[in-house]
Amino acid sequence: MTTVRIALDSRAYDIRIASGLLDSPDVFAAAAARQATALIVSNTTVAPLYAARLERSLAPHFARVLHCVLPDGEEYKTWDTLNQIFTDLLRHQCDRKTTLFALGGGVIGDMTGFAAASYMRGVPFVQVPTTLLAQVDSSVGGKTAINHPLGKNMIGAFYQPRLVVADLSTLHTLPQRELSAGMAEVIKHAAIADVDFLDWLEANIDALMARDDAALAEAVARCCRIKAHVVSQDETEAGLRAILNFGHTFGHAIEAGMGYGNWLHGEAVGAGMVLAADLSVRLGLLPRQDAERLARLIARAGLPVQAPDLGAARWAEWMQVDKKTEGGEVRFVLLHGLGRPVLRAAAMAEAQASIAAHVRAGLSPAEHAA
Amino acid sequence: MTTVRIALDSRAYDIRIASGLLDSPDVFAAAAARQATALIVSNTTVAPLYAARLERSLAPHFARVLHCVLPDGEEYKTWDTLNQIFTDLLRHQCDRKTTLFALGGGVIGDMTGFAAASYMRGVPFVQVPTTLLAQVDSSVGGKTAINHPLGKNMIGAFYQPRLVVADLSTLHTLPQRELSAGMAEVIKHAAIADVDFLDWLEANIDALMARDDAALAEAVARCCRIKAHVVSQDETEAGLRAILNFGHTFGHAIEAGMGYGNWLHGEAVGAGMVLAADLSVRLGLLPRQDAERLARLIARAGLPVQAPDLGAARWAEWMQVDKKTEGGEVRFVLLHGLGRPVLRAAAMAEAQASIAAHVRAGLSPAEHAA
Repeated sequence: MTTVRIALDSRAYDIRIASGLLDSPDVFAAAAARQATALIVSNTTVAPLYAARLERSLAPHFARVLHCVLPDGEEYKTWDTLNQIFTDLLRHQCDRKTTLFALGGGVIGDMTGFAAASYMRGVPFVQVPTTLLAQVDSSVGGKTAINHPLGKNMIGAFYQPRLVVADLSTLHTLPQRELSAGMAEVIKHAAIADVDFLDWLEANIDALMARDDAALAEAVARCCRIKAHVVSQDETEAGLRAILNFGHTFGHAIEAGMGYGNWLHGEAVGAGMVLAADLSVRLGLLPRQDAERLARLIARAGLPVQAPDLGAARWAEWMQVDKKTEGGEVRFVLLHGLGRPVLRAAAMAEAQASIAAHVRAGLSPAEHAA
Repeated sequence: MTTVRIALDSRAYDIRIASGLLDSPDVFAAAAARQATALIVSNTTVAPLYAARLERSLAPHFARVLHCVLPDGEEYKTWDTLNQIFTDLLRHQCDRKTTLFALGGGVIGDMTGFAAASYMRGVPFVQVPTTLLAQVDSSVGGKTAINHPLGKNMIGAFYQPRLVVADLSTLHTLPQRELSAGMAEVIKHAAIADVDFLDWLEANIDALMARDDAALAEAVARCCRIKAHVVSQDETEAGLRAILNFGHTFGHAIEAGMGYGNWLHGEAVGAGMVLAADLSVRLGLLPRQDAERLARLIARAGLPVQAPDLGAARWAEWMQVDKKTEGGEVRFVLLHGLGRPVLRAAAMAEAQASIAAHVRAGLSPAEHAA
């Protein structure tokens, strides 16, 4: 088992990474509260696969283990769904010692984390991520949120879990498209922080896409360490942490412009990184061959490398609503060489040029894959 | 002008207390963000009285000043009302530098604070409390929340304001019933922490009820200092801070049992303190004459000193849903002598005896006043 320790000011927690952890009661001992309630929050896809196994592993550590099963999908990342968690907690008279377990992908993690941050102004929670995206990204950094009809992730909290348990065997049931989406965040971590890791990914991308446990363990652990390093220096996203949004300003515009749920977050980030690298080239920050090298790796991960045709006006609108916007100008995370991110305001015309160079008609991410 | 400095770990802020501060732009300079937006959140009662004056004082410090006017009343302390704030913020493309100003009583302060805590995972906010209750209580301590149909203040955050501006002149428009309700929290602070202050209150209660500015300034400042001292030692309510809930376990049961909004929070706390003092006497902690002394002061503040007849079963139910419940037993804040609070689990039968000794039929708080 690989352990990554996340050190934050008054709170620190471990990420445990290995195959089969769902069936290991011992790994959950760190979150034990024998007089209290555990509430497993999952969705209709994940619950039948894993909820009973998690319950068995939690049973020795809690007075009772309850379940809250939400509908599956980004379109349910709303207040109404969040409120189902609160209603279940109150209906079962759960007190402040109750621990929430987020069993699922990023949507479940974000909603369960925000529920834990807000229920009685804060109860403990544990992440049990079952997608690659959640294992490498959502479960590190304490960002929790729900969507608002006018913007994604606009309502939330910074709130840290007590423990993260990443069981790699859960990735074997993941649809290939979601594996690719998770790989976008893996590639992002390498691109912004670690050229050695980028070399390693180029050598191991086929093993990763074939879900080789050893390769996955290495990739998840390296991503968690990179993200932990960034987050520990900037817990509330005042500065450095913004580099984790490489590809995300373009990506969020794609997600919003195409309608949430049509492109997966990771797919939008895949294409978004290609655009951000192109913009870096246009601004004289990145050699063209490095941008092409990155685009090739993104394509090998089965991700789209072309941008959907939103029209210039809607591209601009969606990039400006992104929450990195401050004082009206659009700031991008760009690459000043591979592994060297910079935060830079760019003229809308330059960004539009990058989009125009990669735009392609078609509605689905598959139509935009290389 | 009196200033009370609230010192918390990484955040500290000032409470400014005086008559006429709403018309003093200088006092708001500490919250200035000249490139950014200010959003004044108030309600249909407070906005016509004070919103334009606050806007004039903020105009020099912000790029623009917007207004969000909510319906007035505890029954609107819900997600739907909170979401009006989020929708306004997003509709006006407000970014992370936006500062929210809570102009109103405790409900506005709680909702605006939670909106600020959650919008884009946290934006700055300033409290401008216009009720005595909010000036002495809600604006110190960082507790923000909304209600859930199954429980009051069940969803919220600990989140500190950047500045609190308590303009005592706003208390001159306060209905007498709300002045009394605020006085309940004033008396509570004295009862749990400061016998000298209790003596002072007995000497000055008539001046306070006549809204004498000098007496009000002294009472508000002393309460803020007491609460600040408690909160600075226990920001997230892990232990000591619970003493601020003196009278609140009984009080919350009254509020919930009578239907939110029928009894004001302060009225319920007034009767709740009488019950908690009685329970302290029954458990041998407090001399009977001290409980009677406290009840007399509560009565002189125009507050109810008798309990509504909820029936024993509903009393028990509502006391157990209170969030101080942990592991199934009911814990009360009791007095081991005036000014010496203790946190103590009590048998339900003892609590019911205190209720029975003070119960009186009748639906309105006025019918329960001395």
